[in-house]
Amino acid sequence: MSSKPDIAFIGLGAMGFGMATNLVKQGYSVTGFDVWAPTLEKFKAAGGLTATTPSDAVKGKDYVVVMVATAAQAQAVLIEGENAALPSLPKGAALLLCSTVPASYVRGLAAQLAELDRDDVFLVDAPVSGGTYRAADGTLSIMAGASDAALDRARFLLQEMADPKKLYIVRGGVGGGSNLKMVHQVLAAVQILSGSEAMGFAHHLGLDLARTREAILQSQGRSWMFDNRSPRMLHPEFQPIASALTIILKDTSIITSEARRAGFPTPMASTAEQVYFSGLGKGYGPDDDSSMVRVYTEGKGKVGPVAGTAETDEAKLELVVALLKGIHLCAAGETIAFAKHLGLDLEQVFDLCINAAGGSYMLEAAGPEMLGLFGAQATAPADAGASLPSIAKGLQDAVDEAQRLKVPVYLGNQASNLVRLALAHRPKTAPEATQGQVVRVWGA
Amino acid sequence: MSSKPDIAFIGLGAMGFGMATNLVKQGYSVTGFDVWAPTLEKFKAAGGLTATTPSDAVKGKDYVVVMVATAAQAQAVLIEGENAALPSLPKGAALLLCSTVPASYVRGLAAQLAELDRDDVFLVDAPVSGGTYRAADGTLSIMAGASDAALDRARFLLQEMADPKKLYIVRGGVGGGSNLKMVHQVLAAVQILSGSEAMGFAHHLGLDLARTREAILQSQGRSWMFDNRSPRMLHPEFQPIASALTIILKDTSIITSEARRAGFPTPMASTAEQVYFSGLGKGYGPDDDSSMVRVYTEGKGKVGPVAGTAETDEAKLELVVALLKGIHLCAAGETIAFAKHLGLDLEQVFDLCINAAGGSYMLEAAGPEMLGLFGAQATAPADAGASLPSIAKGLQDAVDEAQRLKVPVYLGNQASNLVRLALAHRPKTAPEATQGQVVRVWGA
Repeated sequence: MSSKPDIAFIGLGAMGFGMATNLVKQGYSVTGFDVWAPTLEKFKAAGGLTATTPSDAVKGKDYVVVMVATAAQAQAVLIEGENAALPSLPKGAALLLCSTVPASYVRGLAAQLAELDRDDVFLVDAPVSGGTYRAADGTLSIMAGASDAALDRARFLLQEMADPKKLYIVRGGVGGGSNLKMVHQVLAAVQILSGSEAMGFAHHLGLDLARTREAILQSQGRSWMFDNRSPRMLHPEFQPIASALTIILKDTSIITSEARRAGFPTPMASTAEQVYFSGLGKGYGPDDDSSMVRVYTEGKGKVGPVAGTAETDEAKLELVVALLKGIHLCAAGETIAFAKHLGLDLEQVFDLCINAAGGSYMLEAAGPEMLGLFGAQATAPADAGASLPSIAKGLQDAVDEAQRLKVPVYLGNQASNLVRLALAHRPKTAPEATQGQVVRVWGA
Repeated sequence: MSSKPDIAFIGLGAMGFGMATNLVKQGYSVTGFDVWAPTLEKFKAAGGLTATTPSDAVKGKDYVVVMVATAAQAQAVLIEGENAALPSLPKGAALLLCSTVPASYVRGLAAQLAELDRDDVFLVDAPVSGGTYRAADGTLSIMAGASDAALDRARFLLQEMADPKKLYIVRGGVGGGSNLKMVHQVLAAVQILSGSEAMGFAHHLGLDLARTREAILQSQGRSWMFDNRSPRMLHPEFQPIASALTIILKDTSIITSEARRAGFPTPMASTAEQVYFSGLGKGYGPDDDSSMVRVYTEGKGKVGPVAGTAETDEAKLELVVALLKGIHLCAAGETIAFAKHLGLDLEQVFDLCINAAGGSYMLEAAGPEMLGLFGAQATAPADAGASLPSIAKGLQDAVDEAQRLKVPVYLGNQASNLVRLALAHRPKTAPEATQGQVVRVWGA
């Protein structure tokens, strides 16, 4: 009926279901596969076709989208599992791997295809960002790396799934997309947790959390993640479950393991990962990641008599915002320095990040200066913003108060130390350091 | 009866009781005071005299030792509390403050004495180290800073309490002793927790902990703290309570707050502090600090299906030792760099630390090179030991495995990042970095 090509879609989880049903709405015949049968029923009800194995799903399909949760799942559905897709994949098919995986995995997948004599497959490394709403709306951010031929073939499909302004073609071919997603996830990993850390700190300070949320959203401590997660932090059962702790933990572990492999330091993402592991050990893995606020609030009343020095709500809120500003500045620095280390296009990284889930006031304010320090052109007029010593002072005040209250602020302490390290490494003759110079920690 | 002078002793806790009864055994008439009445009864039974207020205790005593737990307690018993000691203190008395307090407090105390027109008092800043056994044995390490006149007056008493080879007269007068104690406590803070982290990691790896303990003590991952704490980690109720979590947490908070005040980064001590705060929030404050191993083991079996790659006990143990080596190397670097920043005598710092509770194989092996990098003479022949990249590789292997097991190794991750930062900051033209060059993180 339609002239549009048939699509196979493997992995109908929270993101994949929305992406696949969006394609159905755009008039495609989409054959879905997922290991969880109820999802298939739901997909049928939404107008999709279903298959009971990856092999069946891809038969005769020139376009295959894979949106499983992990590299191990991708390997299983494509190559190693029972009824894997590859033997049934038509010659010259386009294979879009949209899962968040290490660049080393997707590069290895390209090598496996060649070894298996299937280099006819047009592999596109195309991780996405934007959450379930934008998945269902066809307005995701997509970071695509592939050969020119593969991109030509797959572009229409990427365009169906992405916001027109948020389809990023990444240099470096296969692996480049995953690297760009990975550096974006540094911001996600840190800023999902910084929201919990800030709200936990606010709770110990005795602030009203609903009002604190509103105030943070109007402050320089704001971030896309805080806006998105904080309503669920305030729900007594952290509902609805929009993104499980296990998902951001998986992405965080990709960052830290790839960073170790590359010899690059990621102190902010590593700190976030360790705290996420603590939450996992408490059994919070399947819960919404906003529920990490519990890790910070559970100790309230159990630490003995404590007294802070901030007396007014204004003074307390100032500490919370200073904590977030310092954390987000360091997250921005770690993201851009890592991108530089990986040879990514820094202007593209910046443009992606400020417009995606990694966005924050501090990234927008300090990012252009950071790009300049790494030799790239800023995409916006550089604004030096606050001085680095003033960021250090804000962090010091916040961390001092948390110490008086005897509560951990893992990310804030890490940021406080990194800012001091950056100040120790700037040239002795330099005038007062601007906030973007925090990237000196990473050798800028 | 005796020609020895009468002594007042304020603060008969775990350390103070041993120190005071040792003086009784040496033939002194010692009048003790403590807020906890049962302790006074016990002190009487040990041959001491008792007083019911600080004021009564010091009346007519030319020598007063204060061994309370915190600066706030010292301020209360000496000046601000009910029946405080100062108004009753004889003119020209020697006042030995042996508590671990911030240098800024004891310097402020000297200023208060002057303001209160009591600069006749010979104040000695004399924190101690060595644990309860050595307290009772009169063989503590003591770090004393004071005017020459005060030191002349108090020396005999310091000698009664200290091991002859472990009485350190610190340059810088009042405050110098507390600074030396503080930099030593960087090692204590990190190495008390590294023992728990290593044993927790070993537990997740499936190693037998008693055998792991023995193996670590024979390895380059050994430390004084591990030797001392690990037997209690293996006790099902972490008994006996030899040193409460609240005590090392207090010392750790002194380090991090003084470091922030000085603009000096202490990423290792800060990480330890945050994990200690987590333990405090679980209600572990009064428990022995060895019980922090629980923070690492409690998640076992709750993180979902996991699998490591190390198969033999030898391979697993190697990971645990590599973790400890990396952590202890960074702790040594942070200690020496902080000492340099504070203007302490680095040779004295090194000599103190290797002979006190902060001692570790890695400090002994890498310390001399670190001293050299900061322009001090090494007190032992410099041995470059392992290369920094090999330390980085050992940490990477350990942290990768912990990541596979989905368990936090807070200190190991921090060390892994610091080593990568150090490698990023060494001169480009330098040959392969030696392990001591980790101090480049702190700007050496």
